[in-house]
Amino acid sequence: MKFFEDLKVGDILPIGRHTFNAEEIKAFAQRFDPQLFHMDEAAAEKSHFGALCASGWHTAAAWMRLMVDQRRGQMEAAVARGEKVPSMGPALGLRDLKWLKPVYVGDTIDYKSEIIELRVSNSRPGMGLMTILSSGANQKGETVISFVSTTFVERREKL
Amino acid sequence: MKFFEDLKVGDILPIGRHTFNAEEIKAFAQRFDPQLFHMDEAAAEKSHFGALCASGWHTAAAWMRLMVDQRRGQMEAAVARGEKVPSMGPALGLRDLKWLKPVYVGDTIDYKSEIIELRVSNSRPGMGLMTILSSGANQKGETVISFVSTTFVERREKL
Repeated sequence: MKFFEDLKVGDILPIGRHTFNAEEIKAFAQRFDPQLFHMDEAAAEKSHFGALCASGWHTAAAWMRLMVDQRRGQMEAAVARGEKVPSMGPALGLRDLKWLKPVYVGDTIDYKSEIIELRVSNSRPGMGLMTILSSGANQKGETVISFVSTTFVERREKL
Repeated sequence: MKFFEDLKVGDILPIGRHTFNAEEIKAFAQRFDPQLFHMDEAAAEKSHFGALCASGWHTAAAWMRLMVDQRRGQMEAAVARGEKVPSMGPALGLRDLKWLKPVYVGDTIDYKSEIIELRVSNSRPGMGLMTILSSGANQKGETVISFVSTTFVERREKL
């Protein structure tokens, strides 16, 4: 867990990997995106996707899950080492969410976030604003999803 | 179901309403956003949200579900009337997703999409590009989520 002052533009934050199986792809789609190419193999084969693939919202939500787990792991490790843990705000939104390639059954998506901008918050001087470009790539190295988001990160030096 | 030529900037597309209950808020969070203020009433009371509230991704996915249902209903009604049904492409992403207010247990979110731009596609001349501003408002009329997305819509006149 890093305070704002310890972050650098270009830093890569590893998020984790997730392999999408048919069962969870269908379960998500049934609940939130019931289009046939996300729910039925035979119908998906005849669609422009050519095979069953995950809802784009599922691919995004899988990033969120891994990110929360990753952040919690880092926080617990920092507490265990007796370190101070910076507070982080929730993301208030995101920009430029792109679904670039389908995510098919069996695809393993490797997610990461890269710091692309850092600045001190005007509205909350004790905090910095970290902007990250998050993306997920499949086992062939093709980027399937990307988006940009900004989060508050606590500053060590309170001015 | 409208072809591209029948759409106008300013048209409002009703999407539907969803009331968020505690059980589904927790179920979504457990799977995709396991932060305590989305999973545990007592912890949420002590958080900056003040009460259990839905993951922002849940609020977005609920829009998707209603939109798919809405579009399917319109398509089936058009087919039943013997009308031609325009093809629509998938959204390839979205811009400026904002989570503006928390969605608490019992909140009913009324979603709508407004057409904000229409233009003919350069890459696919048989299609138009429809850009919509989608939003959801709670029972107090407060907007809780908004985002902009662009979709292909078939043209009646193939030039």
